[in-house]
Amino acid sequence: MHKKNNLSAFFSPSSIAVVGASEATGKISGVILESLRNSFRGAIYPVNPRYNEVMGLKCYPSIEAIGSPIDLAVYALPAGAVPEAVFNAGGSAKGAVVVSGGFAETGPKGAALEKALKEAARSTATRVIGPNCMGIYDTVSGLDTFFIPRERVQRPGRGGLSIISQSGSFAVTAMDELATDGIGVARVVSYGNKVDVDEADCLDFLAEDPETKAVAIYIESIENGRRFIEAASRCSAVKPVMAVKVGKGASGISAARSHTGAIAGRYEIYRAAFKKAGIIELNGYEDFLVACKAFGLTSSAAGKRVMIITDGGGMGVNIADACEQMGLSVPGLPEEVEEELRAAFPSYYGVGNPLDLTGSATDESFAFALSKTMSGDFYDMVIVAALWGPPALTDKLPGMLAQKPGFTEKPIIACTPGGAYSRDRIRLFHEAGLPAFSTPEAAVRAASVLSKGRWRL
Amino acid sequence: MHKKNNLSAFFSPSSIAVVGASEATGKISGVILESLRNSFRGAIYPVNPRYNEVMGLKCYPSIEAIGSPIDLAVYALPAGAVPEAVFNAGGSAKGAVVVSGGFAETGPKGAALEKALKEAARSTATRVIGPNCMGIYDTVSGLDTFFIPRERVQRPGRGGLSIISQSGSFAVTAMDELATDGIGVARVVSYGNKVDVDEADCLDFLAEDPETKAVAIYIESIENGRRFIEAASRCSAVKPVMAVKVGKGASGISAARSHTGAIAGRYEIYRAAFKKAGIIELNGYEDFLVACKAFGLTSSAAGKRVMIITDGGGMGVNIADACEQMGLSVPGLPEEVEEELRAAFPSYYGVGNPLDLTGSATDESFAFALSKTMSGDFYDMVIVAALWGPPALTDKLPGMLAQKPGFTEKPIIACTPGGAYSRDRIRLFHEAGLPAFSTPEAAVRAASVLSKGRWRL
Repeated sequence: MHKKNNLSAFFSPSSIAVVGASEATGKISGVILESLRNSFRGAIYPVNPRYNEVMGLKCYPSIEAIGSPIDLAVYALPAGAVPEAVFNAGGSAKGAVVVSGGFAETGPKGAALEKALKEAARSTATRVIGPNCMGIYDTVSGLDTFFIPRERVQRPGRGGLSIISQSGSFAVTAMDELATDGIGVARVVSYGNKVDVDEADCLDFLAEDPETKAVAIYIESIENGRRFIEAASRCSAVKPVMAVKVGKGASGISAARSHTGAIAGRYEIYRAAFKKAGIIELNGYEDFLVACKAFGLTSSAAGKRVMIITDGGGMGVNIADACEQMGLSVPGLPEEVEEELRAAFPSYYGVGNPLDLTGSATDESFAFALSKTMSGDFYDMVIVAALWGPPALTDKLPGMLAQKPGFTEKPIIACTPGGAYSRDRIRLFHEAGLPAFSTPEAAVRAASVLSKGRWRL
Repeated sequence: MHKKNNLSAFFSPSSIAVVGASEATGKISGVILESLRNSFRGAIYPVNPRYNEVMGLKCYPSIEAIGSPIDLAVYALPAGAVPEAVFNAGGSAKGAVVVSGGFAETGPKGAALEKALKEAARSTATRVIGPNCMGIYDTVSGLDTFFIPRERVQRPGRGGLSIISQSGSFAVTAMDELATDGIGVARVVSYGNKVDVDEADCLDFLAEDPETKAVAIYIESIENGRRFIEAASRCSAVKPVMAVKVGKGASGISAARSHTGAIAGRYEIYRAAFKKAGIIELNGYEDFLVACKAFGLTSSAAGKRVMIITDGGGMGVNIADACEQMGLSVPGLPEEVEEELRAAFPSYYGVGNPLDLTGSATDESFAFALSKTMSGDFYDMVIVAALWGPPALTDKLPGMLAQKPGFTEKPIIACTPGGAYSRDRIRLFHEAGLPAFSTPEAAVRAASVLSKGRWRL
């Protein structure tokens, strides 16, 4: 029925209609229209029979009335009105994003509406994202149908990470975190009830999308496992694909829905599918975010050997503990490197792995330690844990570390725990292109994710 | 030799000498002197034979020259000068905090100095904290010997949590995080090489300290296990005691120091000791911080049954997954509660556990759900996961939740993941007395910690 992978209307539209457009900026359609006016570079057509003009733009009574076919229609109508509107639009819009809720997630009546929507899409050959979703946030095309005001949820800048998510709130929250931390994205898709476009369609598109360097997926359920595995396998052959599946356990979900065994057992199937498709399995939100930051900024490590450089002895040992717990190794310094470092550093530096530069640490001592330990084939990646107490440490540190003398392909992971001053330093590392984390454990989780797979971004 | 538990000179001193005082605010002694002038309410005596006056205070050539005995002397001298200075001070100062490094941690020469310091302390009956430490930060007495400038490391306000730590940098970093997040502390002690005062001495004091409601300990090594277990047991009998031991694994530490078996095996001994002493075992920095926030603001839960209330379906399921993974249970709603909620809420709310108030959530819907589910004996604690996208949600939410109608002793744990807007809300929860976390996993870790033990603060 649908031409496979004809999603370009969603990701490079030149014209967009907002159906149900209104002046009210507090309403969904208002938020979307304002976002489009801010960032979308193509033609924007408000559609609403009640207005002649919305936000200074000519408003049309229907999509058909626009006169020429458009690429994308965003539906922000009450659920009951959506199937008919999509049907009436006929072939006038190639793609439709239905952000409205009130479909299958609400019971039998909504399920009937969802079936009608599906039929309208099929009979008009319209591809549909949604319903019950946030739609698309795209830094390449400037499209933003996420209807949460920017005061509450920041939008990330341009980057290479794409996120596809069944849950709108999960996508929104992750986007907001990435934006605050200064990590960019390429495309974010929230597809909700996926009446048509699903994760496999998105993976097909993203596999061939040159703007997308890595893909992170949030999954509640997958209906067509074989198709998913095929699409994910094609994508993971060329770029990192990571996924979190929620609704794993016997406890929460099944206690609530009283079908324990079914759900608890099923996670093993997802895990096997991820493995088969070359997907990195992530365990929950925290892991998801760590992985987004890691592959949003850097490439895979070639192995599991971690070097730890710090100015806080306790943190260094804590990181070494966490590495061991997460299956990474922390090999001691090779003899020649140890001798060289001992000759160069004051006697009270703790020369080993972890390497402790103490409270006397300087930007230069970090950079020197980095270059001496990471040149040669002794380690696959490095965690640099900078506590900002040492007075000689300056904001030049991230840039100095990012120069990577002699080991261009090994990931440098920064760890900078602490309060306001340290938290503000996270963005400096990100601006220098180094993923940075607030806790030793998060930094080690990032190292673990980067050790799974062999992708070069 | 030492009178047991005579640590009052450290925690309620009425006079303090700073030995090695200087005008240079960038120097250790300068930072300490400035902190004391800001917050310490007793008499302050700079000591340095080279000056007559420091920062407007009369400066004395020696402690003996002050003329009357003082409670506490803070030594910020080069290591080589410390043992003699402590000896010469004789009984003129009851307690000494030696912040200087350059002792046993640096090799045989430093070890000899440490031995001399120990002998000077013994022969003059002076109790000593340190050397190679940050000393004391105390919101009760106003004492602050931590020598990191406040621009880089914030100081927490007054609270009930006390922290004792072998590692200065670990204590500093945790303090800084707590300060930024608005969690107060009572006493923080960094004792470094513990030539005299150790964790057992501190536990003895804190067990009887009415200002201390909970104790968190960072441990690298314990020398006298029996004494530690005795002191910790007395303390944990009356208030929560939590501990992290770093240097657990075969990998990092022992690879560096090449005595794998010894160290790896030893962690089992620590774990057994913690269990025997009624100590909550924490796994690394992240866990430590979560536990400090949890017991810094709330009491134990009476069991492991968790209710989850959220406005983000995906987050709710994620939290339920994490509960199961961490040994907590998420029982379904009792029938009568479910009926009552269904009658009160719109049909599209997800009524169950997790309870999903969706994007239509209001402050009132959260508060209503809280009171209906937490009254009665169905749950031991609740995780409230608020995503801030829903426009009706306001900054009144934390205060409304904190009123706890009908279930005063059950912990309410907040979870508010996201970017800048959400992160700024964390302090609002803390000001309302509810511990709040940035990720579902951290919130569940807090729930897990609170379920271990039965303390009422």
